[in-house]
Amino acid sequence: MTATLRDLGEFELIRAITARFARGRDVLVGPGDDAAVLAAPDARVVVTTDLLLEGRHFRRDWSSGVDVGHKAAAQNLADVAAMGARPTGLFVGFAAPGDLPVDWALALADGLAAECALAGASVAGGDISSADAIMLGVTALGDLEGRAPVLRSGARPGDVVVLAGSVGRAEAGLALLTAGRGHDADADVNAGWAGLVSAHRRPRPPYPLGPALAAAGAHAMCDVSDGLVQDLGHIAAASQVRIDLDLAALAALTDLTGLAADGPLRSAAAELGADPLDWVLTGGEDHALVACLPPSAVIPAGCEQIGLVLPGSGVTLAGRPAVGRGGWNHFA
Amino acid sequence: MTATLRDLGEFELIRAITARFARGRDVLVGPGDDAAVLAAPDARVVVTTDLLLEGRHFRRDWSSGVDVGHKAAAQNLADVAAMGARPTGLFVGFAAPGDLPVDWALALADGLAAECALAGASVAGGDISSADAIMLGVTALGDLEGRAPVLRSGARPGDVVVLAGSVGRAEAGLALLTAGRGHDADADVNAGWAGLVSAHRRPRPPYPLGPALAAAGAHAMCDVSDGLVQDLGHIAAASQVRIDLDLAALAALTDLTGLAADGPLRSAAAELGADPLDWVLTGGEDHALVACLPPSAVIPAGCEQIGLVLPGSGVTLAGRPAVGRGGWNHFA
Repeated sequence: MTATLRDLGEFELIRAITARFARGRDVLVGPGDDAAVLAAPDARVVVTTDLLLEGRHFRRDWSSGVDVGHKAAAQNLADVAAMGARPTGLFVGFAAPGDLPVDWALALADGLAAECALAGASVAGGDISSADAIMLGVTALGDLEGRAPVLRSGARPGDVVVLAGSVGRAEAGLALLTAGRGHDADADVNAGWAGLVSAHRRPRPPYPLGPALAAAGAHAMCDVSDGLVQDLGHIAAASQVRIDLDLAALAALTDLTGLAADGPLRSAAAELGADPLDWVLTGGEDHALVACLPPSAVIPAGCEQIGLVLPGSGVTLAGRPAVGRGGWNHFA
Repeated sequence: MTATLRDLGEFELIRAITARFARGRDVLVGPGDDAAVLAAPDARVVVTTDLLLEGRHFRRDWSSGVDVGHKAAAQNLADVAAMGARPTGLFVGFAAPGDLPVDWALALADGLAAECALAGASVAGGDISSADAIMLGVTALGDLEGRAPVLRSGARPGDVVVLAGSVGRAEAGLALLTAGRGHDADADVNAGWAGLVSAHRRPRPPYPLGPALAAAGAHAMCDVSDGLVQDLGHIAAASQVRIDLDLAALAALTDLTGLAADGPLRSAAAELGADPLDWVLTGGEDHALVACLPPSAVIPAGCEQIGLVLPGSGVTLAGRPAVGRGGWNHFA
C-alpha cells in the first residue's frame, strides 16, 4: 500500500521534506524555527509571491510532482531575475489532501530543490496544511548586488527590445496536452513535441540573464508569464511608450520560438489547427525575460533583439495594432 | 446587485486592492512590478510563510473579511516578532471564486493593511488567482536590527519562562462559535465572551515585545500558534531541556489567560462543559510569545513569568507530565 500524508503525519512529513533541501550560503537559519533568516547583503531584498492550484495551474495527470516543483519554483525565481536580482531563497506553503501519496510530496520537494539549484537559490522555509486539493503558495527572494532594480517603467523611445529565453513553447505543450496528445508528445512522435510539453511542465527561465541585462543597463524588464504582447503591454503602459515587435525577427529565432518552417511549433500547430504565432505572442508560462536596452548597450549573449521602443502607446506588430493578441486574465 | 470579482476582473481588482495599502518606509518598490523591493537594513532578512484556507482556518459566517485580513497578517507577523525581529513587509497570495463579492475582498485588504499598521509593517506585494474556495498564502518579512535571531534551541536550565500576550482566549472563542453561541458572544451576554470570540477572529500578538525580549537577552523564543504545551515542547526538544509550567502563575494571569474565578474563560467553559485549563494549555492562535530569559534578565513590561527551564526533557505542569495536553497536528 502506498503511504499517504495521513499515514505519515504533519511533523514526520516536514522532517522528510526539509531533509531534501540543501542549505545554500544565503540561508542563515533554515526550516524548523518560527521563521528563517536569509542573507540580504545588498541591504535591500527583492520579493515576489504566487499561488499555484491543482486543476488551474497544473494537473497531476499531466505533470509529475517533480514537474510541479520545478514549475512552482521557476515562475517565482523568474520574477526575481526580472528585477535584475540574483535569486537567494524560496519559501513554500503546501496544502494537500490527507490521501496524497507521500511519494508525490517528496517528488515535489525534489523538484523545488532542483529548480532552486538551477537558479543558485535554496528552499529556506515553508508551511504545511491539509486541504481538499493541492495548493502551493510560493515566495521567492533575491539580492540586487548593488544594482538598481529594473522596473517596468523605465523604457525610453530608441531602446531596443530583447528577448532572453523561449516564448510560445509552453503554450504549445499545454495545447498538445489539452488535445490529448500528451502520449504522442512524450514519445516525441513529431520531432520536438517532447520539448514543447517539457516547456509546459518545467519552464526554463534564463536566470543569469536577469542580472546580466541589468548590468548591461536595461531600462525596463519583465518576465513573460501572461504572454509576450500582454507583458510588453505592461512595460509600454508603465513607461508611456509604444513597443513595436519585429515579427520577422521573432520568426527567425528558431531556438527561442520554434517558429521556423520545420520547427515543432509549426508541426504542432498544423496538427491542432492552431496559429503558431498566437502561441508566440500570447502564450505565457515559458518565463522568458524581455528587456529594453539603450541602443548603445552591448546585448548579452543569449538575448536576441525582437523589437524597438517608440513614442506612443501600446504594443504593435510590425507597425500594426496587436488586436486580439491578449493574454491571460483571471476571472475573465 | 452586489459586484463580484468576475464583474470587476483581475486587473481592476488588483488596482482596487493595492490602493488600500499604505506604503511604509521599508517599501522601496511596492506592488505592480514583477517583484517588490523591501529595505533590509540589517543585511539579513527574517522570512515566514503560512497558508490559510476557507473552511479550515476561517469561516466566512464566523469572521468578516476584515477579521480574516487581520488574522492572516497577525499569524505571520507574530512569527517574525518571535525571532526578535521588527516586521517590515507582508506579501499575500489571494485566490477566490469569481462570485465572491468585491466588498469582501476589499474588506480583507483593509484588515491586512490595518494589522500591518499595528505591527509597523506594510503590505508590499501579492498575487491574485481564481479558485473554488478562498485561500491565502501569506509571507511576512522582518529586520533583526543588528540583534541575533532568537531561536528555539537556546534555552538553558535556570532560565525563566515568560509569556507575552494571551493564551486560551482564541480557543475559547472558537469553542463558543462551534457551539453556536456566537450571537451570545457578539451580544456579550456573559461579560467578556465578546473578547474571546474577538481573540479568535483578530488575535493580538504583542509585536513590540519580540524585539524587546530579544534585547533583554532571551535565549529562546517562539510564538504560541499550536498551543502552549506543544510550542514549549518545541523549545524543550530543540534546546534539550525540560520546561516546567507554574500552573498557579498561569491561573493568576487574569488579563492574559482569563483563568480567574470570575473570568470569561471560566464562565464560557462552565457553559460549554469544557476545562478552561485545556484552552490555556493547548489552545493555539492567540499568537502570544513565550521566551526563555536568563535569571539575571530584566523581564520587559508586559511579560509575565510562567515557568522555569530545568535539566531533562519535555514539558511538565507543576512537575507532572503534561499527558494528553497536546496541540494541533495537521493530517492527524
